[in-house]
Amino acid sequence: MTPNNNNSSSSSRGIEERRKERGPGAMRIIVPLQGVVQGRGGLVLGSVIPCALFYFLQLYLRKNRSPPPTAAPPESQSQSQSSHSLTPRRSMRSPTRPPFVSSRANHATDREVSLHYLGLKACKENPFDAHSNPSGIIQMGLADNQAMAGLMGDVLKAAFNPSQIVLTAGASAALEILGFCLAEPGNAFLVPSPYYPGFDRDFNLRTGVELVPVPCRSTDNFDATINALERAFNQTKKRGVAVRALLISNPSNPVGKTLDSEMLTMLLEFAREKNIHLICDEIYAGSVYDSPEFISIAKFLESGEFDKRRVHIIYGTSKDLGLAGFRVGALYSYNDTVVNAAQKFARFCSVSSHTQCLLISILSDSQFIKKYLRENQRRLRERSAAFSEGLTKAGIRCFKSNGGLYLWVEMADLMPSFNQKGEHALWERLLSEAKINITPGSACHCIQPGWFRVCFATLSDHDASVALQRIQEFSKRCKT
Amino acid sequence: MTPNNNNSSSSSRGIEERRKERGPGAMRIIVPLQGVVQGRGGLVLGSVIPCALFYFLQLYLRKNRSPPPTAAPPESQSQSQSSHSLTPRRSMRSPTRPPFVSSRANHATDREVSLHYLGLKACKENPFDAHSNPSGIIQMGLADNQAMAGLMGDVLKAAFNPSQIVLTAGASAALEILGFCLAEPGNAFLVPSPYYPGFDRDFNLRTGVELVPVPCRSTDNFDATINALERAFNQTKKRGVAVRALLISNPSNPVGKTLDSEMLTMLLEFAREKNIHLICDEIYAGSVYDSPEFISIAKFLESGEFDKRRVHIIYGTSKDLGLAGFRVGALYSYNDTVVNAAQKFARFCSVSSHTQCLLISILSDSQFIKKYLRENQRRLRERSAAFSEGLTKAGIRCFKSNGGLYLWVEMADLMPSFNQKGEHALWERLLSEAKINITPGSACHCIQPGWFRVCFATLSDHDASVALQRIQEFSKRCKT
Repeated sequence: MTPNNNNSSSSSRGIEERRKERGPGAMRIIVPLQGVVQGRGGLVLGSVIPCALFYFLQLYLRKNRSPPPTAAPPESQSQSQSSHSLTPRRSMRSPTRPPFVSSRANHATDREVSLHYLGLKACKENPFDAHSNPSGIIQMGLADNQAMAGLMGDVLKAAFNPSQIVLTAGASAALEILGFCLAEPGNAFLVPSPYYPGFDRDFNLRTGVELVPVPCRSTDNFDATINALERAFNQTKKRGVAVRALLISNPSNPVGKTLDSEMLTMLLEFAREKNIHLICDEIYAGSVYDSPEFISIAKFLESGEFDKRRVHIIYGTSKDLGLAGFRVGALYSYNDTVVNAAQKFARFCSVSSHTQCLLISILSDSQFIKKYLRENQRRLRERSAAFSEGLTKAGIRCFKSNGGLYLWVEMADLMPSFNQKGEHALWERLLSEAKINITPGSACHCIQPGWFRVCFATLSDHDASVALQRIQEFSKRCKT
Repeated sequence: MTPNNNNSSSSSRGIEERRKERGPGAMRIIVPLQGVVQGRGGLVLGSVIPCALFYFLQLYLRKNRSPPPTAAPPESQSQSQSSHSLTPRRSMRSPTRPPFVSSRANHATDREVSLHYLGLKACKENPFDAHSNPSGIIQMGLADNQAMAGLMGDVLKAAFNPSQIVLTAGASAALEILGFCLAEPGNAFLVPSPYYPGFDRDFNLRTGVELVPVPCRSTDNFDATINALERAFNQTKKRGVAVRALLISNPSNPVGKTLDSEMLTMLLEFAREKNIHLICDEIYAGSVYDSPEFISIAKFLESGEFDKRRVHIIYGTSKDLGLAGFRVGALYSYNDTVVNAAQKFARFCSVSSHTQCLLISILSDSQFIKKYLRENQRRLRERSAAFSEGLTKAGIRCFKSNGGLYLWVEMADLMPSFNQKGEHALWERLLSEAKINITPGSACHCIQPGWFRVCFATLSDHDASVALQRIQEFSKRCKT
């Protein structure tokens, strides 16, 4: 109550006290240093003090520098070494180093020491009930009557442990949470490109994670190659940016192609060698309408050969069940720290209990779900074939996709010039003349100009034929 | 495709190119500098180069330093001056400086240059329809059939502009978004304490905003005083931490008291003088069950005396409508940059369209809503009075609350010692012996030990009487 009773901030008081303890000697150093920073010190002092500090820093660094070839390196150093070393990849397999988890995730799991949360926990463990538990604890610490719901179930078609699922308001929120958990701001994720344009928004807006495209080419069937991965990894490290994860979509978006066993093994081995995470966005898994069959990354982990703690799967109901408006996404992680932190972060993106109830009743009818997915895949297959045929007739090459709600097509012939500018010009003409909006490959960070993503699933049969007609007429006009 | 074709990161390539343009002269400086940073350069060069750089820095700073007493100070300097100056507050009124908006918010509003988003925008402006707009643009760039819903309406009982409302999955998400928009990580918000324990989680988990309690005391009826605000502001600035906002709840949580016109004016003037934002959490506004009446901050802004751009209101359906499970919160801001960025951030916390539909149909029956709120207030008043009476009988002092779902009570008499340790011990005994969970004041950052928040609204009449009986018996046992 007195003016000296400055309780508002204990940490500031701590600094004051420590400053007093140091005595006047410390002040003699601090004052000229302040002068240096503010440009108010003398010219001599302002130059000599930093000079002396740098001299001692150099001495210190010389003494403490560990000889690179022999000493056991800390995590970050070992990463940069492995990327430059010529030792065979297999030698990196054992022992397994724990994958990095961000300070934000560790902070989130460290919290909850407040009595407020301890009380809530005690109530949950021994809740009062007038009949069944009359000596239980009465909850008078929670201001709302919310049933903190956790829809844990079999949304994904695989054997998943419900306690490792974190529900979120849409898959974007689940992806963003991984950004918060697996990286510090300024860290990077590698992403084979072309990739889904929304990834940029999901990671760049708030998490501060940089996405580094790993260019894939038509000559490789738009598959990621180990060379491209290594190059992107090394170049990013060279810039002083730590790579924390490899982000893939399976089936891939925008290419619409499932990843085979060989590719999944290669990606898992790369993640292990670089000691980074592997994020698999499998949101179109139920929309694979043609062979080869979809294989979830979860399948590979059953062998026990790979360290599960670095693998995280994204799923949601928006694509396969056509329930985008429901905003139901799921993060499945094998890493307990990530699950724990994600559950706390999910406070900011929780799913309405009203929607959860409806979803549970939809999903519990597994006969219906199976029938729905089968019928959906049949229609996707039909529509994809119709579009593929129609576009081919117009002289437009379609990539052989087997999943997703889109085709990946090449229109380089129609561009005024074979570069990104030409692609942009074609996209603008399609929009203004043909009145068709498709996604240009450059928006997906595609390295080769001339590729476009054509989404065909939302149109009615009538509108689909109008769209095809417009594209065909436009193509004809362009070529004549 | 060739090893030299390092297209994976355009930014790194840009740096490479710029480095080449600089030529060998630049490299002669860069190489020893790298040595300095890595501790691998010579002792002499490693000390002389920084010394020389600091010398020129000092020279530069000397030349470019503006004389403080006359020149117009930049924003941050003027803030520290006003906090120390003795000029009357009224002189600060005009001209109005624009309130700070974070780089994250500016970055979010700057984005959307991707053709992907430009295409979506063009489709929205001229959408194809087989009948009404057959020459419109066909949407084949959006992979889902989501109706990107925007429930804009009259959830709040005031004249609000729908275009300034951003819907979020719960009020926590709306608060967190303000943390992202109004502050850089490491910045601070002032919060009169005791305050809602959830604020710590909402701002500390991911936004990196530090909450600085502004202690309020029973002798001031737990009102914030201008002295306490000034002290907290100055102490925070002294630590080198920028204060960006003042965060209040009205009616206050945990005290359960509405803020009067005088208090609101004082807070608005303080925010103006310090050029900081004012965040008003009005989530219990409809749960004010006794006089004096609730006054929204929006009311004050109608006079036009204050700069609206620094005011942001939080609302939600969880408390007043008992719909916590719906996860429907709202951020109302008068600041266009904040609204724009928040709309983008809300991608990660959007409300299920299924829940939005139900909510619209509930809210459109305004007769029902009025009746519901009136009945809810009547029951809150009754329950509050019953608890107040019962606790007073047990010798426990209750603060005169007029809103919220809780009472703010003093139990210092029952504590083994008059400090936070004693408060903790009493809370533990209440939990283990009386089997009652209430929120200790320390969890709300209350400066005075012995105060507790007792939530009374979630209990049935029977359970409420059991709870009261337990507290009364416990109090009797403690005193004998």
